[in-house]
Amino acid sequence: MDGVKVVLSYSGGLDTSVCLKWFREQGAEPYALYLDLGQGESAQDVEAKALRIGAAGAFVRDAREEFAAEYIAPAIKANALYGGKYPLFTALGRPLIAKKLVEAAREVGATHIAHGSTGKGNDQVRFDVTTASIAPDLKVVAPVRDWNMSRPEEIEYAKRHGIPVPVTKESPYSVDANLWGRSIEAGPLEDPDHEPAEDVFELTTAPEAAPDEPEYVEISFEEGLPTALNGEELELAELIGALNAQAGAHGVGRIDMIEDRLVGIKSREIYEAPAALTIIQAHRELESLTLTKDVLRFKAQVEQRYAELTYDGLWFTPLKSALDAFVEETQKTVTGTVRLKLYKGSSTVAGRSAPRALYNKELATYDPNSTFDESAAAGFITLWGLPARQWAAVNGGQTVPH
Amino acid sequence: MDGVKVVLSYSGGLDTSVCLKWFREQGAEPYALYLDLGQGESAQDVEAKALRIGAAGAFVRDAREEFAAEYIAPAIKANALYGGKYPLFTALGRPLIAKKLVEAAREVGATHIAHGSTGKGNDQVRFDVTTASIAPDLKVVAPVRDWNMSRPEEIEYAKRHGIPVPVTKESPYSVDANLWGRSIEAGPLEDPDHEPAEDVFELTTAPEAAPDEPEYVEISFEEGLPTALNGEELELAELIGALNAQAGAHGVGRIDMIEDRLVGIKSREIYEAPAALTIIQAHRELESLTLTKDVLRFKAQVEQRYAELTYDGLWFTPLKSALDAFVEETQKTVTGTVRLKLYKGSSTVAGRSAPRALYNKELATYDPNSTFDESAAAGFITLWGLPARQWAAVNGGQTVPH
Amino acid sequence: MDGVKVVLSYSGGLDTSVCLKWFREQGAEPYALYLDLGQGESAQDVEAKALRIGAAGAFVRDAREEFAAEYIAPAIKANALYGGKYPLFTALGRPLIAKKLVEAAREVGATHIAHGSTGKGNDQVRFDVTTASIAPDLKVVAPVRDWNMSRPEEIEYAKRHGIPVPVTKESPYSVDANLWGRSIEAGPLEDPDHEPAEDVFELTTAPEAAPDEPEYVEISFEEGLPTALNGEELELAELIGALNAQAGAHGVGRIDMIEDRLVGIKSREIYEAPAALTIIQAHRELESLTLTKDVLRFKAQVEQRYAELTYDGLWFTPLKSALDAFVEETQKTVTGTVRLKLYKGSSTVAGRSAPRALYNKELATYDPNSTFDESAAAGFITLWGLPARQWAAVNGGQTVPH
Amino acid sequence: MDGVKVVLSYSGGLDTSVCLKWFREQGAEPYALYLDLGQGESAQDVEAKALRIGAAGAFVRDAREEFAAEYIAPAIKANALYGGKYPLFTALGRPLIAKKLVEAAREVGATHIAHGSTGKGNDQVRFDVTTASIAPDLKVVAPVRDWNMSRPEEIEYAKRHGIPVPVTKESPYSVDANLWGRSIEAGPLEDPDHEPAEDVFELTTAPEAAPDEPEYVEISFEEGLPTALNGEELELAELIGALNAQAGAHGVGRIDMIEDRLVGIKSREIYEAPAALTIIQAHRELESLTLTKDVLRFKAQVEQRYAELTYDGLWFTPLKSALDAFVEETQKTVTGTVRLKLYKGSSTVAGRSAPRALYNKELATYDPNSTFDESAAAGFITLWGLPARQWAAVNGGQTVPH
Repeated sequence: MDGVKVVLSYSGGLDTSVCLKWFREQGAEPYALYLDLGQGESAQDVEAKALRIGAAGAFVRDAREEFAAEYIAPAIKANALYGGKYPLFTALGRPLIAKKLVEAAREVGATHIAHGSTGKGNDQVRFDVTTASIAPDLKVVAPVRDWNMSRPEEIEYAKRHGIPVPVTKESPYSVDANLWGRSIEAGPLEDPDHEPAEDVFELTTAPEAAPDEPEYVEISFEEGLPTALNGEELELAELIGALNAQAGAHGVGRIDMIEDRLVGIKSREIYEAPAALTIIQAHRELESLTLTKDVLRFKAQVEQRYAELTYDGLWFTPLKSALDAFVEETQKTVTGTVRLKLYKGSSTVAGRSAPRALYNKELATYDPNSTFDESAAAGFITLWGLPARQWAAVNGGQTVPH
Repeated sequence: MDGVKVVLSYSGGLDTSVCLKWFREQGAEPYALYLDLGQGESAQDVEAKALRIGAAGAFVRDAREEFAAEYIAPAIKANALYGGKYPLFTALGRPLIAKKLVEAAREVGATHIAHGSTGKGNDQVRFDVTTASIAPDLKVVAPVRDWNMSRPEEIEYAKRHGIPVPVTKESPYSVDANLWGRSIEAGPLEDPDHEPAEDVFELTTAPEAAPDEPEYVEISFEEGLPTALNGEELELAELIGALNAQAGAHGVGRIDMIEDRLVGIKSREIYEAPAALTIIQAHRELESLTLTKDVLRFKAQVEQRYAELTYDGLWFTPLKSALDAFVEETQKTVTGTVRLKLYKGSSTVAGRSAPRALYNKELATYDPNSTFDESAAAGFITLWGLPARQWAAVNGGQTVPH
Repeated sequence: MDGVKVVLSYSGGLDTSVCLKWFREQGAEPYALYLDLGQGESAQDVEAKALRIGAAGAFVRDAREEFAAEYIAPAIKANALYGGKYPLFTALGRPLIAKKLVEAAREVGATHIAHGSTGKGNDQVRFDVTTASIAPDLKVVAPVRDWNMSRPEEIEYAKRHGIPVPVTKESPYSVDANLWGRSIEAGPLEDPDHEPAEDVFELTTAPEAAPDEPEYVEISFEEGLPTALNGEELELAELIGALNAQAGAHGVGRIDMIEDRLVGIKSREIYEAPAALTIIQAHRELESLTLTKDVLRFKAQVEQRYAELTYDGLWFTPLKSALDAFVEETQKTVTGTVRLKLYKGSSTVAGRSAPRALYNKELATYDPNSTFDESAAAGFITLWGLPARQWAAVNGGQTVPH
Repeated sequence: MDGVKVVLSYSGGLDTSVCLKWFREQGAEPYALYLDLGQGESAQDVEAKALRIGAAGAFVRDAREEFAAEYIAPAIKANALYGGKYPLFTALGRPLIAKKLVEAAREVGATHIAHGSTGKGNDQVRFDVTTASIAPDLKVVAPVRDWNMSRPEEIEYAKRHGIPVPVTKESPYSVDANLWGRSIEAGPLEDPDHEPAEDVFELTTAPEAAPDEPEYVEISFEEGLPTALNGEELELAELIGALNAQAGAHGVGRIDMIEDRLVGIKSREIYEAPAALTIIQAHRELESLTLTKDVLRFKAQVEQRYAELTYDGLWFTPLKSALDAFVEETQKTVTGTVRLKLYKGSSTVAGRSAPRALYNKELATYDPNSTFDESAAAGFITLWGLPARQWAAVNGGQTVPH
């Protein structure tokens, strides 16, 4: 790789630090890119470390608002939960990082971008396919996947090259985090029958240790996006941060699942996503009040596909754009407020209201002065049941003898 | 209706009691049918009341096992939740009642069957279409829908004819219940922004009043159906009863939703279904361990359609049979045990195991001695990303300038 | 209906002529509306007839371009074929007529609109639901459905009131037509085993009587819409007219199908739609060249739902808008030219080209100097087959003993 | 590969002949397997050639009936057409060949199976994944893909080892065929704008050269499968053969398409499948008469997924089994006869009848003595349009000002 310019997605951790040095040793000219997506690290420290190890330059950016506006926001509108459970925070972050890698590569004239993913996960695919989607001329390299160093070999390599190695006893877990959630895997969690210990969690209090009094939280939406928390208007990134704190304090937001990775294997994952889960819960509640049955039924299928595409690294592809257009069109009337009750690990809807609610008490009520035309029912039933009646007339009742 | 024999679905309540007398007055020969589906009434009292009011005969049956085996069991395999939330207990009970009405009608030679549903709900459709599906020659009458008596008029009618009228202050709620759940609607609940008061609930303790210690429950499945609770083998109906008690005691099983009725309106519904929700939660968990990604993805669509059909009164129709065949085929390996933690309103999965789990720790582990072939990943990604790459090559990167 | 202003969709035929007079007799003030959608009648004659019978006013409009641009165009992009066969011309025309009825009603201050549909077809639903969708305050009346006059009674009524009755022997068929196609039903066609006689067809030559030489037609598209025929740029309505003539002359465009009506019954329908079928055929061909596999697979499902909604009278509903947004987003690159060979009843694709074709000969070729990376295949297959392999390892091969 | 026993799918052509010799040279013990799936070669010649080149043994089987009964039959019931066009004959044949390879491997104690596919097509995936699905312990090798010999190198190798090389001028096309169809690709066909020359076709007469008189063909089905042709009962394999001849003589069965290969590229394919296309056409026609609207609508989605799975090599996977169960359940009443008119390249339905037809002339007729209850229509429409009406009342009419 002599003389090759490469921009590396750099986290500050051991893997990508070793990558950086390794690129140098290969004769490449490596640049480090670090985005603050809300993972809670010090960007300055990461930058300093990159330069110290030998980066030819460092790109450090606060991308939280862009992440919220361009990646989380459409996912909220699509109620994007992979496997019905996982709010896709890592999957949403990767295309943004890849996009910034490409931008940096254009800036320094690099021909390669690089990431520290292994060969077993989804992220390698997300980096690669995103890059293919927006900059098909760039090459993507994944040294960690390809060099096959074991953990001890990496540590040995780091020590030999003066890369700082964490001295504390290593955590058995592998963790990833951003504004939209936090994942924990590996170690004892690889047994699907093993309940996660409390040391796994950071964003959520244990339900048993949560306050003895329930707390209500009110999330207000405009055209499908949360705009205010408990009556206070907030930018999306801020709102998510505040809700992570409030819901997490009540033990809300834990997920334990068996997940189908893109590469064909099942894995066991633990997630914490207090804001993501409560926002999507509230958003769905509001949709049930403001969207028609037909839209809700078809949107459920769009949502499933949307989550699959996002998980599978296909964020910047034409099907994703088309699904976005569908979803966007449905959100115009999804405005209103949802109240959730947070209590010892559970979030329960306590009320919802919307200026354009399709719920109509006068139609729905069992009161005698309902405006619903009951006489229409008999005619409706006659035609609704006609295919079943005709089927039975021709083929005989299915189970009951005449 | 002079001389017409009619079998009425009789609940013992005011509406159907008035129906019974009204049929007599029209010159019809009404028979009462009452099924114990686990709603918790005394069958003997109901029977006595029917005869006292003037039923020509009474069919009283304990149908709990049949209900569990023929209606709830397939719904479990299909994870049937309408709108993603409602476990369809009333919708599952109606076709069974209609079937028994038909059987009784055949027995006494009746030409009509009858029910006490109003014109605003789903049940009228379910009775009618089910009957059309299995006995297209029988006529279905719905006096309550068609006579348009107000509540006070009904009471006046009842008093005039010596039908006992409840003396206690009338509940503002309209309730329906069976083994698989309990619904509460009307009164103050018709305001979607009104949080239900505690007097609404019967099967579930308030989370705040639930035990301070979590409790674990273990549900074992064989080929998709729960067969043991906490290690003890139970018939399905018994198991549901026991789980309703255990989960309900921890405040688990409450549902608050805006629902799209078949007749085209939105309604607000409160449900309690401790056993239904925990069984489906556990069943899904076990499926995520034992079914392939492809099956899970397609089954999600089948499940949605299944719930819609069941809700819409189309239980005995050929599409329902075909979806059942699909579902049944997928359940052959869904055997194993799931452990849930019940605590103050929430049910959390704590572990799952299955003899035929597709999860393979040796493949999934991040351990160096994983059997996963990481070198295959690069080739996989190349082809997986090829359409996106080709698209970008032809149409230009979507967002990033070159 | 004394003093009630009503706008009637008036065709000039017997049914709606009787309606017009009948409204007058009821004391209503009826207005007639007639749209030229390409059905090939004289608008002037229709207008004169309406006024002669007693219309308070007549709205006569050439709506062909609007029909093409606002109704046919989105249907082309969506390849809208109900049951995979019927290009929905009547279903597309009804919402436009209903919209114009509403506009006319607003203009004259009418509170009612009316149409001449019977109670057995789909059109009554389309008129009614469209009106509900755009003007929920207007009442819709359907005298022909509600008065239950037999055909001889109608004729007798017409004669009594001086309404001209066709003197020629009545055709056994019921016909509807516009720019996008022509339907023929009733009479001997009600037997699904009866092959339609040649007198049924008007737009298409019998294949046996078609020219002995094939003819090629070239349809050019821009962003999903046909813009030129055989190299000549044409407005959509003109292009359709020209293609109806060219393809119809070769016997192309006949459809014979069993159709599921919205009202729950099956009917047998004969259609002629030379332009509709060839345009959709060519459009699909171009899409196969310019859209990714993912888009094509999901769009197939959108197309089916789109056709169902259109058929079912739900054109002006929010799900339709959202599906339109999806479809529209996919069409940006669907530009190119398709060549069809027309010959004695068949239309065969003979070639297609597109500036943004995703087909890449260098990738696809079996030539040794292909740019396709064959070495990637092994890795792809390993991961693609991993779930099947794992399933087999756990559950045993499905059919073959070890 | 010293001493390794391997069973090779042997066609008798150059590629697999070179494979056979190459295995010998590597020290392996290669067995040849050849199945007659109706491709029209002499099995004896192939066997002799294999042994002459050096096969340790040859398995030669007539598998036509098994192919028809176990692979084509379910595909007929599922109307399996990939991309709506391709009847999947090669995709259906591969899993059967793989299964027989596995059986032969078990018989001789081989640890490897082999095939002659290249790295660019779908077949390599089908062989590999099928084997993984039924015999995950066996290794699959693909020498042609992996050795990267060019065509001249292969010929040179063949000559050097005494393998007969075709002396005639090589066809520019690559062809595959069996009972269910014939594919032609490569050469000038790689230009999607190039109309195929007549020398491409073998099973179908050019429409222009076809008889000047139309011919009718009658296909009778029992429970979804064709059982008689023109009134004569035939085994499925025979029936297909006869129909290939009859329909092919009229120029029916040609397909020209742009296809999305599993490996991520688009290719241009020419197919001939006279029997496949006419059987599926007739089968669909019969389904439209005997299945309910609900079944037809959902089955359309199942069919699409079915075709995708089959194309993608996932024949022996659990989702395929579950889809089969769905399809099978729907076919119980699909019995009846369909008449098609064959004429100069087109096949047109001329009539259909079924003992259990759901079409009911008395309901559908526009005759005054129809049994359809028109008065039910108004009630039906009221409720059918209620969501649209409520939407408009809340959100304002979509396009028309009040």
